[in-house]
Amino acid sequence: MSALETVLEAGGPAVERLMDRVERRMEAVTAGYGAALARYSRETIHAGGKRLRPLLVCLSAGVPPPESDGLVQAAVAVELVHAATLVHDDVLDGSALRRGRPTVVASGGRKMATATGDLLFARAFAELARGRSPASVTVLSRASSELALGELMQRADAFDGAIQVERYLQRCRLKTAVLFRAACELGALAGGIPSTSLAPFGEQIGLAFQILDDVLDVSGPPERTGKPRGADLLDGTITLPLIEARNRDPELAALEVGLVRSERDAGTVCDRIAATGALDAVKERALALVADAKSSLPALPERQRAALELVANGVVERYA
Amino acid sequence: MSALETVLEAGGPAVERLMDRVERRMEAVTAGYGAALARYSRETIHAGGKRLRPLLVCLSAGVPPPESDGLVQAAVAVELVHAATLVHDDVLDGSALRRGRPTVVASGGRKMATATGDLLFARAFAELARGRSPASVTVLSRASSELALGELMQRADAFDGAIQVERYLQRCRLKTAVLFRAACELGALAGGIPSTSLAPFGEQIGLAFQILDDVLDVSGPPERTGKPRGADLLDGTITLPLIEARNRDPELAALEVGLVRSERDAGTVCDRIAATGALDAVKERALALVADAKSSLPALPERQRAALELVANGVVERYA
Repeated sequence: MSALETVLEAGGPAVERLMDRVERRMEAVTAGYGAALARYSRETIHAGGKRLRPLLVCLSAGVPPPESDGLVQAAVAVELVHAATLVHDDVLDGSALRRGRPTVVASGGRKMATATGDLLFARAFAELARGRSPASVTVLSRASSELALGELMQRADAFDGAIQVERYLQRCRLKTAVLFRAACELGALAGGIPSTSLAPFGEQIGLAFQILDDVLDVSGPPERTGKPRGADLLDGTITLPLIEARNRDPELAALEVGLVRSERDAGTVCDRIAATGALDAVKERALALVADAKSSLPALPERQRAALELVANGVVERYA
Repeated sequence: MSALETVLEAGGPAVERLMDRVERRMEAVTAGYGAALARYSRETIHAGGKRLRPLLVCLSAGVPPPESDGLVQAAVAVELVHAATLVHDDVLDGSALRRGRPTVVASGGRKMATATGDLLFARAFAELARGRSPASVTVLSRASSELALGELMQRADAFDGAIQVERYLQRCRLKTAVLFRAACELGALAGGIPSTSLAPFGEQIGLAFQILDDVLDVSGPPERTGKPRGADLLDGTITLPLIEARNRDPELAALEVGLVRSERDAGTVCDRIAATGALDAVKERALALVADAKSSLPALPERQRAALELVANGVVERYA
């Protein structure tokens, strides 16, 4: 049984029922806007994904969570923002594959993908507005702004060999961790828990998630990640495995990332990064963040604490 | 004195003070997110623009309008959504100029422009959330969804010579009129007026605005519009002037829009459209919509009615 299946079991039938409602609602949202959108946004929404963020929303509200419309709306809103950013990221990266399937930009073109992302984004706020909680809108709009800033930062730093750890972590926080944080805050709000109390937990597991994602980009294998190794290198994105490997291998330190142009070249550089032992060091760093996340949890009912700790483990599990 | 200056005068000092606060707040919003964003979003926000939508928000709340933070936030939110859509539209169209100045996509590239649009969009909802009015978030998220649908529709219909008037009007409603409608609804909400009562007014002047914009694309002159004539043709966007001209000129009816590829060709087709007399017919249609908009207004205090009618005139004025 995977860690996330264990979470679902630990959360009990209320969590399963809520997650079913989240799926059905996302289905309805993406079906309701005409054929073109239905096709592209449904492809995005339904191309799997672990629903980690909706699960965090539910468990942050309590275990068992309240089976309220507001909680479903918050979970759907977070996943829609996530989907919107994936669609726009793929436009920016020109990515052909995500989760082993063609991206919206690959199948519908840049224009369709940009508009689809905009629509998913707008629907997220429409969904959240149904819950009539201004505090929730504040949380999600803040996170959305930070996601866009993270994207801007990634573009600004592309191919910049001088990027160091602190700047990398700041970017990961903006482009990934803030949405995990928002998921926890939205759940807490719906559960009547102070919204900031779970924010550090969300942010730290989000950071760990991104760091491990960056490890996976180097380690592959493609059959598992659904994309070729070294996609970050080809995109000019300087990640922690490369930064760490450069401290260990002078030839990598001298590498001009802009000169890595083919998938084959990228694969060679990935092998070289792996050979330095940097990947293990980076994984250690992510595991330490997961441990920090767990110890940041406030006093919570035992079942809720256990379920959130299982989610934290789930973030790590895919790299075990 | 322009019609919009007349509106400001008719609205009295409260409207001027509110519009000043809107400007200052937009300045603060765009300055607060780092150098790259500050540059690009400020260029977008401050490249002029008539601030027609914020003005509609203010006047829809009453004349004189209540000088509340909520009204300023709503006005800023609408203008930020407008700015976000302009930035993304320019990415989609690959436009080099807007209002006679380089677009974000031209000066910063596609990636920067996509992320900038996302950020402006997120900031719009963050701004509206400060007002703590769930009804307002509902109005703006609905309009934002429709704007994205309008964009999708424009892409789906591009270069399709079979597009007829009804489909064209539906697209104009989605891509433009819904934000004018939202401006009126948000203002009404802030002023304690039933939000739907001003919606038809907003929607009809928005439609007229878009139709006249499409006339201007054909008639130019470029010195006035800040872009070459026939940009819509080059982009494959079938507009009412072309639809109307095709009913009058068999050669235009036979024209493959996809074959119009240079600015020079586009200018020639524009001349031909103008020669059919279609532009006057289209302008008449827009004027009729403005008249409908005025007569759709509910019972309102005289000063408010007069000010809203002046805005409706302002929409038409730039084509006088």
